[in-house]
Amino acid sequence: MCGASRSRGWMVLKILALECSSKAASCALMDGETLLAESYLDCGLTHSQTLLPLLDRLCRESGVPLSDVEGIAVPAGPGSFTGLRIGLAAAKGLSYALGIPCTGVSTLLALAFVQRGTPGICCAALDARRGEIYNALFAIEGGRVRRLCADRAVPAAALAEDPLLSEQRDILLCGDGASLCAGVLRDRAVLAPAHLRLQRASGVGAAALSAGEWGPPAALRPSYLRLSQAERERAQRLAQAPQQEKEEGQ
Amino acid sequence: MCGASRSRGWMVLKILALECSSKAASCALMDGETLLAESYLDCGLTHSQTLLPLLDRLCRESGVPLSDVEGIAVPAGPGSFTGLRIGLAAAKGLSYALGIPCTGVSTLLALAFVQRGTPGICCAALDARRGEIYNALFAIEGGRVRRLCADRAVPAAALAEDPLLSEQRDILLCGDGASLCAGVLRDRAVLAPAHLRLQRASGVGAAALSAGEWGPPAALRPSYLRLSQAERERAQRLAQAPQQEKEEGQ
Repeated sequence: MCGASRSRGWMVLKILALECSSKAASCALMDGETLLAESYLDCGLTHSQTLLPLLDRLCRESGVPLSDVEGIAVPAGPGSFTGLRIGLAAAKGLSYALGIPCTGVSTLLALAFVQRGTPGICCAALDARRGEIYNALFAIEGGRVRRLCADRAVPAAALAEDPLLSEQRDILLCGDGASLCAGVLRDRAVLAPAHLRLQRASGVGAAALSAGEWGPPAALRPSYLRLSQAERERAQRLAQAPQQEKEEGQ
Repeated sequence: MCGASRSRGWMVLKILALECSSKAASCALMDGETLLAESYLDCGLTHSQTLLPLLDRLCRESGVPLSDVEGIAVPAGPGSFTGLRIGLAAAKGLSYALGIPCTGVSTLLALAFVQRGTPGICCAALDARRGEIYNALFAIEGGRVRRLCADRAVPAAALAEDPLLSEQRDILLCGDGASLCAGVLRDRAVLAPAHLRLQRASGVGAAALSAGEWGPPAALRPSYLRLSQAERERAQRLAQAPQQEKEEGQ
């Protein structure tokens, strides 16, 4: 990997990364690959209350003013819908106000970057409720992360039959869906250690450095992978009673 | 590993760990193996100015008051003499004031715990200046860390002939002496990724949970591994002109 990220004419070295796509929140300042500062909180607090104070203190303690930051990196999804919206909204606001580019990276790719010191197959999995996971598979070798499949929402049980995993042992599980996958893959899998189990802003920054498509804040879009609960319920209602819904809508 | 650490009659679950044994400073709150919060700063600032504010903020942001902490973990050495003294003094003060036990763990063991997700041989190395490193070797397997040799101060060049490394490839290098070792071990070694390269308080906490000898603050002692520069220079003067030094002392 190179220490600077170029795309669409931007060259970004000093990155501020935010992560609040699940229950932990973190932010990180990076100068190329060097991690200058990182704050991580997994205490069940509300990201809308904690994210900006966390970021404000990170800049003050590190002595790196926001005006020195050259790009904002954030997970675009998948993950908690509310968490993703808070992260994306904060990233857009910062990018717009500072006049610097931003990038949204796959939450699962960023999680695989946290594991990039451990060679082998990495299975990144976020709990998507109802027995499902947001999942992607990666091959890690020599500190590089290679994607083996697109981000997807699948039942955790489907991993047992996944042809990409059929010959694999020591599959590294990370994310808050890791224990669901451990129940399926059993002795073929190992859990990432506690300090690397969940998403971290330093992983978002590393993924952005390696693969970020930098652009203006208006180009930043969430990637939820599936409909929200409200949208699912409406679709179900429509399927069950299309006429009634139509009449109500008139 | 078990989630609680017992020794000398203490049982410690909720740990506050401090790390300022080299240029980065960090602190972490852990509940057993779960990392509740971590702050990390590698910005060339003075630990005596940054450590306690960092800790104060960690407690406030995580909502975990100091009064909930059950034990203080800190690296006892090796490392920067000044950094170790700041960390040990802060740990002793906290332990004494809160009436809770503390433990000093090997800085190198704690660094190996940061790498515990990566199976294989781990070479933890801190730059001890003048071509020397503070070093220890560990075998990591199934998330467990097994020590292969005692902490030592050796010329980095000595690693080339170390019998413990003679058959090894993919030796994982970490610590601020990693690049010195990379020059010696060349294609037999790989550098830990940037976010895991240096010491982290979460590694100190994990090492303390696994191997900490908890006790009162008075029992906490530094382990420098070699004499300070002032002590070395005095010993050299004494060796060169013992009579003169003796006369000056009268």
